[in-house]
Amino acid sequence: MLEQQLQIAVRDEEELSVDLIEAQYALKNSRDQNNAKSLVILVSGIEMAGKGEAVKQLREWVDPRYLRVKADPAHLFESKKTFWQPYSRFIPAEGQIQVFFGNWYSDLLATALHVSTPLDDTLFDAYVENMRAYEQDLKNNNVDVIKVWFDLPWKNLQKRMDDMDASQQRWHKLFGLDWRNKKQYDNVQKLRQRFTDDWYVIDCEDETVRDQQFAQYILHALKQLPKHKTTVRTKWRQAPVPEQLLNPSTEQMSKEDYQTELKKLTKKVSDALRNDSRNVIITFEGMDAAGKGGAIKRIVKKLDPREYEIHTIAAPEKYELRRPYLWRFWTKLSDQGEITIFDRTWYGRVLVERIEGFAKPIEWQRAYDEINRFEKDLTDNQTVIIKFWLAITKDEQEARFKAREETPHKRFKITPDDWRNRGHWDDYLNAAADMFARTNTAYAPWHVIATNDKYSARIQVLKAILKQLKAD
Amino acid sequence: MLEQQLQIAVRDEEELSVDLIEAQYALKNSRDQNNAKSLVILVSGIEMAGKGEAVKQLREWVDPRYLRVKADPAHLFESKKTFWQPYSRFIPAEGQIQVFFGNWYSDLLATALHVSTPLDDTLFDAYVENMRAYEQDLKNNNVDVIKVWFDLPWKNLQKRMDDMDASQQRWHKLFGLDWRNKKQYDNVQKLRQRFTDDWYVIDCEDETVRDQQFAQYILHALKQLPKHKTTVRTKWRQAPVPEQLLNPSTEQMSKEDYQTELKKLTKKVSDALRNDSRNVIITFEGMDAAGKGGAIKRIVKKLDPREYEIHTIAAPEKYELRRPYLWRFWTKLSDQGEITIFDRTWYGRVLVERIEGFAKPIEWQRAYDEINRFEKDLTDNQTVIIKFWLAITKDEQEARFKAREETPHKRFKITPDDWRNRGHWDDYLNAAADMFARTNTAYAPWHVIATNDKYSARIQVLKAILKQLKAD
Repeated sequence: MLEQQLQIAVRDEEELSVDLIEAQYALKNSRDQNNAKSLVILVSGIEMAGKGEAVKQLREWVDPRYLRVKADPAHLFESKKTFWQPYSRFIPAEGQIQVFFGNWYSDLLATALHVSTPLDDTLFDAYVENMRAYEQDLKNNNVDVIKVWFDLPWKNLQKRMDDMDASQQRWHKLFGLDWRNKKQYDNVQKLRQRFTDDWYVIDCEDETVRDQQFAQYILHALKQLPKHKTTVRTKWRQAPVPEQLLNPSTEQMSKEDYQTELKKLTKKVSDALRNDSRNVIITFEGMDAAGKGGAIKRIVKKLDPREYEIHTIAAPEKYELRRPYLWRFWTKLSDQGEITIFDRTWYGRVLVERIEGFAKPIEWQRAYDEINRFEKDLTDNQTVIIKFWLAITKDEQEARFKAREETPHKRFKITPDDWRNRGHWDDYLNAAADMFARTNTAYAPWHVIATNDKYSARIQVLKAILKQLKAD
Repeated sequence: MLEQQLQIAVRDEEELSVDLIEAQYALKNSRDQNNAKSLVILVSGIEMAGKGEAVKQLREWVDPRYLRVKADPAHLFESKKTFWQPYSRFIPAEGQIQVFFGNWYSDLLATALHVSTPLDDTLFDAYVENMRAYEQDLKNNNVDVIKVWFDLPWKNLQKRMDDMDASQQRWHKLFGLDWRNKKQYDNVQKLRQRFTDDWYVIDCEDETVRDQQFAQYILHALKQLPKHKTTVRTKWRQAPVPEQLLNPSTEQMSKEDYQTELKKLTKKVSDALRNDSRNVIITFEGMDAAGKGGAIKRIVKKLDPREYEIHTIAAPEKYELRRPYLWRFWTKLSDQGEITIFDRTWYGRVLVERIEGFAKPIEWQRAYDEINRFEKDLTDNQTVIIKFWLAITKDEQEARFKAREETPHKRFKITPDDWRNRGHWDDYLNAAADMFARTNTAYAPWHVIATNDKYSARIQVLKAILKQLKAD
């Protein structure tokens, strides 16, 4: 890959503006359509090169209502946060353009330059690779990403700093680097060349050329959007359904044994969760009536509600559907509390969305890798993910459905949807089999729990949590 | 007012659960209907009284998908944040129930008990009064609020602490108060009695009674929801339209004077904005084509995009319509950047929403006070609000509309809506007159700027910013 350069000539401003606005409206009008897209623009570069001016000029040429600009000071990488977490809430909805002025690359640069033990090249490159994988996932989910580096030669930078007045100097210091220091300048250049080979690089010596190049790059990107290709997987090889799912154990536990064990384990689990310094995410999937709610109730038994958060996942809202399917989970990850429980999860993509046709085959087939990367990023950042599949037999489900229908305070738990899903029993088994085959990773393994016997199921869940917390 | 007490008898758990779920579904089904409501439950109390257990029990009796629990550690009051800011994002949408376990009152208590210079009673009471006004505004906007204090006598608390095991002790310390200290306990009791007279107070000596009381209070509140009354204003007295709006000055400024002044002022404004330690909010309203965009462009001319944020306000989205109309502005207030510009604002409630009938008379008539309180809370917390109304003549607007239609890169700025709004010219003048009469407060005054001459308009805007920044 080479640093990308478009052949550009300075164009008439009005014509350029009209083209930009038309492209912007085409994007906006794609909203809720089959070809809906959004665009993320990452902006970075040498201080004083004029990133700010170029963004401001762009804002004047386009319709500013559909161009959002987010400008953050650098987020230094912390161990409990992935690089995308400060930004994920702002990933634009279909039809929108979002400029990240300050983004994961500038955070990487800042981290590399500021932390006391500098990142070594291998780690730096690993971050870059990870960021590109994240961007590719965004692209596949209809969020295009373009990256623009504003460059300025050393001499030119020094001259601009000489010409600056005092108030600007104060402002420029805010960004924390000493741009009078040649060694530091060279270091920035050396580092940025480790990631800018798929960026547009703008030489900012001439201001008009700079603003025009920037705007024309974006126009180019907007026009490319509909052509956007995603790799198509061809044959799908269904994984065999594991024995645990076909014939989950129905071994029974006595009530006395259960109560003795439960008392001991709920205490141990709450202690272990509290004393773990990492973020902990516990997720539940499984057939309806398999006992997710009951298992969750026992996990939190000895915890205070201030210690955990439970997310019960239902069908996505319209504003959520306008973003990548993982978006609504990105925004639910804890940034302060440490224990997060999901009653149904992102695996809906490869379960209900696959089976009901809400996701196209290419979409759910791609989702396994996307989910693995999502979980890997989290577990690489001091997060434990404990995933449960609760497995019951078809007969036992029927018995529970009927019992629910006959119990007034449980009746709300059973809806026509549940009976309909039951009609897809084998589809769900197949989808679950594929899911295990592809997402049972070392860093986020699946725990399949037989739940025909509720007592032993709950005990197994608690034991599995203890075991994984110790092992990780 | 007296601490509220319902006559409660311990009910059959299943029946109570069925009643709760039915009430919850009635609430949920109100969504998008005329009688749509949501419910906020504030939970506070003495440590170890069992707030957590009661919330957990409630969660087991209701459908947990429609009961959200947010539990934050205390936010000590800071000068640049209103008491509602940590929570406003979580004010529930229609149909939802939100428990704030940790809320503005517990923040107030924590602030009163923790800060080095304790709040005096007058200040404490002023906070409480303010909180009640905020809650009343929520109620009027279909978010009901109930408040529950979990109480426990001193002796009982000590006994529970004696019986606690070590791991729990560690956890209970997290909340920062020494519950072995009788003086501190008494102090909490004394302080909370300054605000709990409109709370449900639960005596938590008996656990079953505690959980049942809590659940029955909530059931009671859910059943009251549809009856919810709001005060009706009767006669509406239209304010006279000020001369500045009827006949805005059309005095002209020469291009040379403009350019000289502009250069000086953009520099001064950027310096003043940068050097101001407060949050600054600058808002624009006015007829279409009055020059809002042009004025904003000049304000930010010498600023870097990382220094400010511009919000262009269009029609609300569906998920925004399901919450109080101020909600989408609450969530756009800066919590890190310090300069926020709104191109159209919350005043839409008393302008377009009034005129188009999107808000009922009772709603927009109430909005003036709500907006005043909103702005007061902000300005009381180190925020400057600079509000502009750009005034042009009807003829000049027509000339600008036509010019826009003839200029390709400006054509997008003009839509059939603009011509339609023009048809409501006098309605807008009347609505603006009422708005000035009711919201031109000392803490957030209106600046009416004549904009037939663009040059002098922009200069006046810049001067007004400088003046207000200095004056406040």
